[in-house]
Amino acid sequence: MEARTEIETLGEFGLIDHLTKNIEFQNASSILGVGDDGAVIDHYGKQTVISTDMLVEGVHFDLMYTPLKHLGYKSVVVNLSDIYAMNAHPTQITLSIAVSNKFSVEALDEFYEGVYAACEKYGVDLVGGDTSTSRSGFVISVTALGEVVPGQFVKRSTAQKGDLICVSGDLGGAFLGLTLMEREKQIFLENPQIQPDLENEAYIVGRLLKPEARRDIIAFFADNEIMPTAMMDISDGLSSDLLHICNQSQVGCVVYEEKLPIHEDARMAAFKFGLDPTAAALSGGEDYELLFTIPQSDYDKLVLNEQISVIGYMTDADAGSKILTKGGNQFKITAQGWNAFKDQ
Amino acid sequence: MEARTEIETLGEFGLIDHLTKNIEFQNASSILGVGDDGAVIDHYGKQTVISTDMLVEGVHFDLMYTPLKHLGYKSVVVNLSDIYAMNAHPTQITLSIAVSNKFSVEALDEFYEGVYAACEKYGVDLVGGDTSTSRSGFVISVTALGEVVPGQFVKRSTAQKGDLICVSGDLGGAFLGLTLMEREKQIFLENPQIQPDLENEAYIVGRLLKPEARRDIIAFFADNEIMPTAMMDISDGLSSDLLHICNQSQVGCVVYEEKLPIHEDARMAAFKFGLDPTAAALSGGEDYELLFTIPQSDYDKLVLNEQISVIGYMTDADAGSKILTKGGNQFKITAQGWNAFKDQ
Repeated sequence: MEARTEIETLGEFGLIDHLTKNIEFQNASSILGVGDDGAVIDHYGKQTVISTDMLVEGVHFDLMYTPLKHLGYKSVVVNLSDIYAMNAHPTQITLSIAVSNKFSVEALDEFYEGVYAACEKYGVDLVGGDTSTSRSGFVISVTALGEVVPGQFVKRSTAQKGDLICVSGDLGGAFLGLTLMEREKQIFLENPQIQPDLENEAYIVGRLLKPEARRDIIAFFADNEIMPTAMMDISDGLSSDLLHICNQSQVGCVVYEEKLPIHEDARMAAFKFGLDPTAAALSGGEDYELLFTIPQSDYDKLVLNEQISVIGYMTDADAGSKILTKGGNQFKITAQGWNAFKDQ
Repeated sequence: MEARTEIETLGEFGLIDHLTKNIEFQNASSILGVGDDGAVIDHYGKQTVISTDMLVEGVHFDLMYTPLKHLGYKSVVVNLSDIYAMNAHPTQITLSIAVSNKFSVEALDEFYEGVYAACEKYGVDLVGGDTSTSRSGFVISVTALGEVVPGQFVKRSTAQKGDLICVSGDLGGAFLGLTLMEREKQIFLENPQIQPDLENEAYIVGRLLKPEARRDIIAFFADNEIMPTAMMDISDGLSSDLLHICNQSQVGCVVYEEKLPIHEDARMAAFKFGLDPTAAALSGGEDYELLFTIPQSDYDKLVLNEQISVIGYMTDADAGSKILTKGGNQFKITAQGWNAFKDQ
C-alpha cells in the first residue's frame, strides 16, 4: 500500500518546509528565498518583468486526466511563457496553492516534483509562496519574475503596418489533446471498463498536458540580433491573441490559411474528430507558442529557422483583420478563443 | 433598482480593462503595467523584495460579514505588511482573482475600489494580474514587490541572545473582531430578524475587516537609524510567529504578560465573550503588527515611540520559550496560532 500522509500532520509551516527544503538557487540574483516574509532579488542594471497566472480546478484543468506532476510543470511553464513573450529571461517564481484536505502530502509532492522539474529545466528559482486549505477545488497561482536588458522588452502594442506576422512551433495541438481527453473522459464515465484509446495521440496529449515555453526562440532572437516589433504568447488561441496585437497596435492584418503551422498528428486527430484543423489552429488555446511581428527587412534573419513560420503581415487598421483561405476566400478573423467567463 | 452587469457581458479582457483602466502609476520604477504578458519594473541599485499570499473564501474570509471593498483593501494590505516586515518599501503588486458568475461587475468594482484605495494609501502600483472564473468560492492571490537598500533587508533568522523583543500597536483585536462577527452570524442564521449588536465594537471590527500595514514603523526605523536584528509581521498570532523567529534564529525567549499591548476595547470585548485577553493577544492572528528584535543598546532610540512595546528578550535556545504571567507563574509558549489545514 502506498504511503499516505495527511497534510494536517505537517501543518502549514511543516508542509512548506517539506515542499521547499531541497531548493538550490540557480540565479545569482536570488538572494533570499522561502522561509521569511518575502524573498529578496537583485536586479542591478536590468529591468524586472513580472507576470502572474491563476489555474483553477474544473476551469483550467481536470484532475481526472491531468497527472499532478504534469500540472505542476505546466503551472510554471505557462508563466515562463509570458516572461519570454516580453523578450525577457525568467529568473524567479513564487507559487501559492490552495488544496483541500483530500490531497495527501504524497500527492502534493508529485505536484511539486513537476514544479521543480520546470524550475530546473528553465533555470528559475522558486523563492516564495503561500500554502492554504481550500473548501473545494485545487487553485494554483504562480507569479514569475524575469530580467531584460533595459528597454529591450517587447510589448503587444508596437506592431507596424507592413510587419511580418510570425509564430513559433505549431498550433491547435493542445486543443485537440483537450478534445481527445474530454471524449475519453465521457466514455470512461459511461463505462469505466473501457480503457482510454490514446494510441498514436502522444503528440497532442503532450501538447495539452506538458507544454513547453519557447526559450529557444528568445535565444535565437538574441543570437541573430532580431528585435520583434510586437510579441505575445498564444494562450487563448491565435485569432484572439492576434486581435489583441492588432487592437493594441492599431493595425489590421492578413493571415494565409496555408501558412498556418499544424503538426501532422494534430491534423490527423482533427480529421478523426470531424474538426477543421484550421479552426483548431485559429481558435484552440494553450499552445504557448510565441506570436510576434518583425520588420520585412528582418525576414532573411529567420527564414532558416524551421521553428518559425511567417503566416501573414500587418496592414492599415482600416483594412480590418482577415484570413485568406486555401480556396481563395477571405474571412474576417474573430476572437473565438476561450472565454473564462462563458460556460464552456 | 441597482445596476447589475453580468461579468460574461464584458468577457475576460473587457473585464480586466474595465477594472484597471484608471490606474495611474505612483512609482518611477513602474515602467509597464497591465495589458501585456508581463509588467516591467526598474530596480537600479536596489534589491527587490517579493511576497505572495492567497486568500480563500470560507477559509480566510466570510462574505456574509466582509464587505467587498474591505476585502479588496485587506488583500493588498496583508501583502504590504510582509514587505514592511522585510524592512522594505512596497512598490508594485499583481492581483489574480477567481470568481464565480454569481458575482456582478458592480460587486467586483467594489472589491477593486478597496484594492485601489490601499494602493493609493501605500503608494503602490497594480501592474498585473489574472482574472478567471471559479466553480465555487472567491479566491484572491496577491504578489507584492518592494525595494530595499542592498543588504538592509531584515530576516527572521538573525535575532541574537539578549535582544529586546518588540511589537508595534496592539494585539488580539482582530481575533476578537472575528469572534464577534462569528457570534453575530450565528445569531442571524438562527433568527434573521435580529439586527447585529456591533455598538462599541468599532475598534475590534475594524481590526478584523480593515487592517493596516505598519509603514510608519519602517519609516521610524529609517529616521532613527534603527536596524532590527530580526523581524516578521504577526499574521498567525504572537506565539506562533515569535516561535518562528526563535526557531530560525536558534534562540529562546522570555515574554512578560504584563507588557503585552492590548487595546482597552479589545480587553473589554474579551471579558464580554468570556475570553482571556492575554490568550487573545498571544494566539489571535491577523493583527498585522510588526514583531521585531533590537540590540539592548538601541532601547533609548525607541522608548519614546508609543506605537512600540518592548515585551521581553531573547535568551539561549536551551532556556526555551517562556511567558512570565502577572501572577508570577512561568509557562512554555506554544504555537496555538491558526493552522490553515486543521478544521477550525
